[in-house]
Amino acid sequence: MLRENTLTQSIQTEALLSDKKDYNMEDLTFVLFGATGDLAKRKLFPALYNLFLEGKMPESFSVIGLGRREWSHEFFREKIAESLELYSRRDVQEELLPKFLNHFQYCALDVTNPAAYEHLHAMIRQGEETKATSGNRLFYLSVAPNFIELIAENLNRAGLNQTTGWRRLIIEKPFGTDLQTARRLNKKLSEAFDEVEIYRIDHYLGKPMVQNLASLVFANPAVGSLLDLKKISNVQITASEIVGVETRADYYDHAGAIRDMVQNHLLQLVMMTALHLPETITADEISMKKIEVIQSLRPIKQDEAYRDVIRAQYDAGEINGEPVIRYLDEPGVEENSKNDTYFAARLHIDNDAWRDIPFYIRTGKRLDKKSTRIVFEFKNPVRESLPAEETVPNLLILEINPHEGITLRLNVKDESSEFFQPAYINFTKPSDNLADAYELLLFDAMLGNATFFAHWNEVELSWQWIQPLLEAFENNQVPLHTYPAGSTGPKAADDLLKQDGFAWW
Amino acid sequence: MLRENTLTQSIQTEALLSDKKDYNMEDLTFVLFGATGDLAKRKLFPALYNLFLEGKMPESFSVIGLGRREWSHEFFREKIAESLELYSRRDVQEELLPKFLNHFQYCALDVTNPAAYEHLHAMIRQGEETKATSGNRLFYLSVAPNFIELIAENLNRAGLNQTTGWRRLIIEKPFGTDLQTARRLNKKLSEAFDEVEIYRIDHYLGKPMVQNLASLVFANPAVGSLLDLKKISNVQITASEIVGVETRADYYDHAGAIRDMVQNHLLQLVMMTALHLPETITADEISMKKIEVIQSLRPIKQDEAYRDVIRAQYDAGEINGEPVIRYLDEPGVEENSKNDTYFAARLHIDNDAWRDIPFYIRTGKRLDKKSTRIVFEFKNPVRESLPAEETVPNLLILEINPHEGITLRLNVKDESSEFFQPAYINFTKPSDNLADAYELLLFDAMLGNATFFAHWNEVELSWQWIQPLLEAFENNQVPLHTYPAGSTGPKAADDLLKQDGFAWW
Repeated sequence: MLRENTLTQSIQTEALLSDKKDYNMEDLTFVLFGATGDLAKRKLFPALYNLFLEGKMPESFSVIGLGRREWSHEFFREKIAESLELYSRRDVQEELLPKFLNHFQYCALDVTNPAAYEHLHAMIRQGEETKATSGNRLFYLSVAPNFIELIAENLNRAGLNQTTGWRRLIIEKPFGTDLQTARRLNKKLSEAFDEVEIYRIDHYLGKPMVQNLASLVFANPAVGSLLDLKKISNVQITASEIVGVETRADYYDHAGAIRDMVQNHLLQLVMMTALHLPETITADEISMKKIEVIQSLRPIKQDEAYRDVIRAQYDAGEINGEPVIRYLDEPGVEENSKNDTYFAARLHIDNDAWRDIPFYIRTGKRLDKKSTRIVFEFKNPVRESLPAEETVPNLLILEINPHEGITLRLNVKDESSEFFQPAYINFTKPSDNLADAYELLLFDAMLGNATFFAHWNEVELSWQWIQPLLEAFENNQVPLHTYPAGSTGPKAADDLLKQDGFAWW
Repeated sequence: MLRENTLTQSIQTEALLSDKKDYNMEDLTFVLFGATGDLAKRKLFPALYNLFLEGKMPESFSVIGLGRREWSHEFFREKIAESLELYSRRDVQEELLPKFLNHFQYCALDVTNPAAYEHLHAMIRQGEETKATSGNRLFYLSVAPNFIELIAENLNRAGLNQTTGWRRLIIEKPFGTDLQTARRLNKKLSEAFDEVEIYRIDHYLGKPMVQNLASLVFANPAVGSLLDLKKISNVQITASEIVGVETRADYYDHAGAIRDMVQNHLLQLVMMTALHLPETITADEISMKKIEVIQSLRPIKQDEAYRDVIRAQYDAGEINGEPVIRYLDEPGVEENSKNDTYFAARLHIDNDAWRDIPFYIRTGKRLDKKSTRIVFEFKNPVRESLPAEETVPNLLILEINPHEGITLRLNVKDESSEFFQPAYINFTKPSDNLADAYELLLFDAMLGNATFFAHWNEVELSWQWIQPLLEAFENNQVPLHTYPAGSTGPKAADDLLKQDGFAWW
């Protein structure tokens, strides 16, 4: 059985490789800071490997992994092989693996030492000369946030950003910790790279369902019809997690859900949801339209934040039958921490399309299930005209994670009971072979397509919108509720929607 | 296992009976002509039994079965019990059966003998006096079409339609064989019954999905949104059968698909589909709106019928791996019969809503599958703007028979191939416990609700629209194509849609 599987897979891989389309990819050197870290292991190596299998890597490419530790090239390649074994969505093909690993080199580098960059530079140049690549350099900074400015400065100082080809910089969140630090960080980066060369990763923008929102409407007039805004009462965006703070208290206890999830991921989802409606748009217009959306997002004033925003922290509770501790007892969390592990808010987008349709967003750790989804709730005329009829509102549910799917909830008459019953019509993609966000994003970055990255204007405007809330939290102007671990969140979040006659779905 | 099932079922039945709602049903005598026939056995007795189980029969009711044969009450009841055993969708409950059968009596009657009606009248009156019912009489004519006029005349002559309660007449198709005979039949019936007392059964109107079309839109703004007619390119109504002419050649070889299926069922489906769009309507408005639709149906002239109408007859072929004979070789079919076993047409509804959206209808025997469905095809803007993109049009499919379901076909991007793939999101009701059309229609007739019966105006206007086609067929002005049994129909029907850039779904 195993043998048969391997054979089948081998044939499929051949097919993948021979099916190789011409993506017009340019040769490049991929300079990876943080190559010994968790993200590289879990996401980046598997993403590169799967792109490689799909023929979505350039003919000639070289990856230079950087880390503090003294690793040999061989040891680095063993680590990569290990990571693929554990995390690649496609099985590792023994005969192809050496061919893939051959592209990888390792270089120990103390990022705080300017002189070390000279050595790196020499290594890059040597590779470029040997392989006769055109000097295209992609820098990926998968490092602690406090090193980003420094690395950019050192890259600049040592002239690594001076090249005969193109240069691009990919950075991970968080992009600053508030409006001011974000602006300072951006200023620093812009000394070494132009805005069009900076690719800010928001991996929610790499989710296939999010990327395909626009094309879903474009390719499906039926979806466009469904999203007739005159019939929509509200939109709900949920990003819930089962996990707690895990080992990240150091960072998380100061960031909170508001910085970790809301300023970036949730506001990006709000922009992506609102931008392409009511009409379809092209990929080129996406960034422009996103700016328009975030500019239209009605500001929430610091002293009025308590009206529209709920923050909360998880208490002890139970998940999957196992007791779990409260946030305050998690290792690394400050005694009496006021940090938010849950955030919900009511938003209004003041443009013609969305003015009368509130957006409700929520995210939290230690909730009852892992799910990222966008729910469009339809008005319920039956409830208005026949209050006794037991109908529920129609819902269009776009599931983003962990499964991709489209579900439409209708009321269907059950002729035996003579009453309407909710019926779900849905299409769910199996999640086991879904391309990971990092595959899509790395591929785009290599091609120079910045559509699904966070542009500076979006980041700045998001921080600008978030800033009064950060200050309201800081000054305790928004009450900190608690919720039992494993629940759906604090009652206050339910009450927020109840005020408007709605409920979370 | 069997015992357990029976126990469960018994409990469920108890629940059904105790759950009995007050439907305000009036006592009645149900006078059934054709009680020894096939329809009674397969449909009417099982329908009455299931209504009985659901508490949807009056407290006091009496069924008098009529037939030519000399049966005793006992033998009649045995026959009913047999029919329930074979055809009831709920299992027969031994302890309840005698209670149900107790309501049935038999009376031998020669429908051509006026004197026999006096005897029947006495029997009805005796029952009414014994049970002190209020003289409500429901006559059901499940007899060969040539007896209908005669029975109506004899009922009238013997005064059976003179009663202290209400009187209603239910009749089966066919209602005439052309415009002239339909008008004459109606004139005869109207001498004995008022139009509001005549319930013309079209069992397609009894299908739950058809009955719920209006409420589906009413209760589901999302469905209303989907049916944004600006985005619909065409509507296709299909009623296909696998069976051939079976033992009905006597009737069918003169009727053809055009009389057997099109004039009644398909035109009723066209009316039901078009009537409630673009806005939702109430049940009371249905009949009025249906008339408006059929009046707007663009006439097809006799000498132009060949442009919009396809007729065909099945040739020999294969179904489920078994060879089947051609129509002309079926027992009872005339040598060189020109009868149509397949009919397809392009229709236009000349009102504001539907003017630019053609309806394509088709029906036939000996096709590849049994299916009645309404398909809304959306325009395909992708095809127009990016002809290379392999997208298929969105479809909203309402399945009526043999399964009830709602399916939406979308184009979903498959991130590995980068192309759109069709994806089906659907909801299908299990068909095994679906109420039969006759249950719904008998219940409605007992309550005096004529919404889902064919009114005279609709029938007359349908015949009026069909009449030029009948004459075109008669005069061979429309070619008679053939199609292999087990196929999807004649190529000419595909070409009909190809002219407009469409294809059958």
